[in-house]
Amino acid sequence: MKIVEIRESTRPISSSIRNAYIDFSKMTLSLVAVVTDVVRDGKPVIGYGFNSNGRYGQGALMRERFIPRVLEAAPETLRDTERDNLDPHRVWATMMANEKPGGHGERSVAVGTIDMAVWDAVAKIARQPLHRLLAERYGNGQSADPRVFVYAAGGYYWPGQGIEGLTREMQGYLDRGYSVVKKKIGGGSLAEDCQRIEAVLKLLGPGQRLAVDANGRFDLKTAVAYAKALSQYDLFWYEEAGDPLDYALQAELAQHYDKPMATGENLFSMQDARNLIRYGGMRPDRDWLQFDCALSYGLVEYLRTLDMLREHGWSARRCVPHGGHQMSLAIAAGLGLGGNESYPDLFQPFGGFPDGVRVENSIVTLPELPGIGFEGKADLYAEMKALAA
Amino acid sequence: MKIVEIRESTRPISSSIRNAYIDFSKMTLSLVAVVTDVVRDGKPVIGYGFNSNGRYGQGALMRERFIPRVLEAAPETLRDTERDNLDPHRVWATMMANEKPGGHGERSVAVGTIDMAVWDAVAKIARQPLHRLLAERYGNGQSADPRVFVYAAGGYYWPGQGIEGLTREMQGYLDRGYSVVKKKIGGGSLAEDCQRIEAVLKLLGPGQRLAVDANGRFDLKTAVAYAKALSQYDLFWYEEAGDPLDYALQAELAQHYDKPMATGENLFSMQDARNLIRYGGMRPDRDWLQFDCALSYGLVEYLRTLDMLREHGWSARRCVPHGGHQMSLAIAAGLGLGGNESYPDLFQPFGGFPDGVRVENSIVTLPELPGIGFEGKADLYAEMKALAA
Repeated sequence: MKIVEIRESTRPISSSIRNAYIDFSKMTLSLVAVVTDVVRDGKPVIGYGFNSNGRYGQGALMRERFIPRVLEAAPETLRDTERDNLDPHRVWATMMANEKPGGHGERSVAVGTIDMAVWDAVAKIARQPLHRLLAERYGNGQSADPRVFVYAAGGYYWPGQGIEGLTREMQGYLDRGYSVVKKKIGGGSLAEDCQRIEAVLKLLGPGQRLAVDANGRFDLKTAVAYAKALSQYDLFWYEEAGDPLDYALQAELAQHYDKPMATGENLFSMQDARNLIRYGGMRPDRDWLQFDCALSYGLVEYLRTLDMLREHGWSARRCVPHGGHQMSLAIAAGLGLGGNESYPDLFQPFGGFPDGVRVENSIVTLPELPGIGFEGKADLYAEMKALAA
Repeated sequence: MKIVEIRESTRPISSSIRNAYIDFSKMTLSLVAVVTDVVRDGKPVIGYGFNSNGRYGQGALMRERFIPRVLEAAPETLRDTERDNLDPHRVWATMMANEKPGGHGERSVAVGTIDMAVWDAVAKIARQPLHRLLAERYGNGQSADPRVFVYAAGGYYWPGQGIEGLTREMQGYLDRGYSVVKKKIGGGSLAEDCQRIEAVLKLLGPGQRLAVDANGRFDLKTAVAYAKALSQYDLFWYEEAGDPLDYALQAELAQHYDKPMATGENLFSMQDARNLIRYGGMRPDRDWLQFDCALSYGLVEYLRTLDMLREHGWSARRCVPHGGHQMSLAIAAGLGLGGNESYPDLFQPFGGFPDGVRVENSIVTLPELPGIGFEGKADLYAEMKALAA
């Protein structure tokens, strides 16, 4: 049993949208196929992965460092001999040989993307949906719950949008079964942002909620000014007000905003996540953590992050990852996370759910597909099959 | 006045050495040439840069993102019109367009290396040594002091070394004029490391000192055990005991070791450096900070780090950067840092000083060469000229 090849292709996920920090007109991602010599149903098992938006494809780092290390390793050093499978933890350690500690960016995406494909292969070799495999190996003893909370992330700024464009977009999410929607803030003035928020709030019925996201743009003064203005609304959360590494700002902000806050999508290791927990003043009874395994060295590292959270008194239920990919859906179902981000209109065909999965009251139910479940989404699987062909 | 081309070449800096964390057998770096249309002494001005060891060359990231952004920018947006020169701050902002906050690794090396070459070009255009230009623009009003403290970093573990190999190496540094030398710890047992330390201490005369470096390998328990054992010696510093992002470990260690400590070479942004200062328990009266601009978005970001340090009551004198390159020598001379690392036997021809510069009592005196001074080191400049040819 061995990995015989790892392929990568960098794809544009360009779009005319922008958030408060960047525009996406030149954004890319990496699509990866991990080809094994294991045969299931007459075909070689191939695991797939891709990184989520915002941090660019990382094919060059994969080809220079991470893929050669895996392919040059003696196959027995990557095996889970007990289960007759590949061992994602051993693959991970092999990838990270000769990497110094600290400096968690870019390579965390390269490793996270390959790691996703390895877990997809491992679950397929085990003939299980990944969420069931995770519940059995790492869960709390209960079986996986295939029902996962999802919210619709959108409300980016785009040319010619206006309030009408924004409310039309948000109504579209509500019509498709989402009861929690998210929009960006910080791309206009506070007054403009309040107008936009109020326009969306008018659309919402009972039980429906709005989250807002500043994408790390604000300094402390602006973050506090927004906190005071946002306090008048009953928002689902106030996300990433300041620089993701400015834990002091986040902690200070909690003195000015007693409703839920969220952050973490730009922290790419257990160590960075731990610093948020240690120093960021985040409150385990109401705040949300958005670490995204696809950008953060994958599930092997995310398991360390979940252990760290437990040691610090945080429930996995407070995690709602960034990124809108099926890997985090599987983790949410298998390990009891609080839910997952979703981009109904963006980053296709990579984001989203298997075909036929419906959102009802912001809940999706994962189908019983082997692996992560990419084969259930025809447009995505067409790209994956082409890469592996 | 404009940048007409940016070239990059990835070079091996392989070596059989290893520290407590990685071996260097496949290590690479990026050599960069920034070609301008400015003519000095009948030739186009070309700025050069390279990244220091430990984090790999970053040519792919440069070619995919950072070089195109600079070359596609309107030349007037990169100019310092007041001084008829390029503006490194504007070049930096152009490189970092469409980059999200957080995740400071790899790209910090790509940007830092190009930034080095930009400053080299800017000082050459200004017909000044970089250290004098920095003293005038950002210094404390006094002129640059071309005398810089340097220490000899070595004492890596290598096959067949033994105590004899170690002491022979260290004696070689003392013979060449260094009075402070550094060796690695953590690659053997504590007892073995103490034997190695004592063997080196026996070589040292009055005023000569030894620093030790664990390269981030230790957990808290091991770090504290070493702290207790190392307290019996009069070491120059105890460096990077634990994971570079484990500020709590560093702060706890200060409770067990009242002699000088050093860390920071694996923190790659002002924000990460600020977290060390905020949470790491480092003591401005005795500890040392080793942030390396070549790995950390360059001098433009390092100036932000120096501002942050000043705001937190730290003197620039407490900074002795990692990396052993002439860029940090120029910054040290121009902005009054405490000194610079040096690898007399390693990473050649990239490390070291201009030809003819002698180390006396661990002090070097920078020559009056335009730019960073690479043209004064024949073996290094031969590589640079070949890249630009």
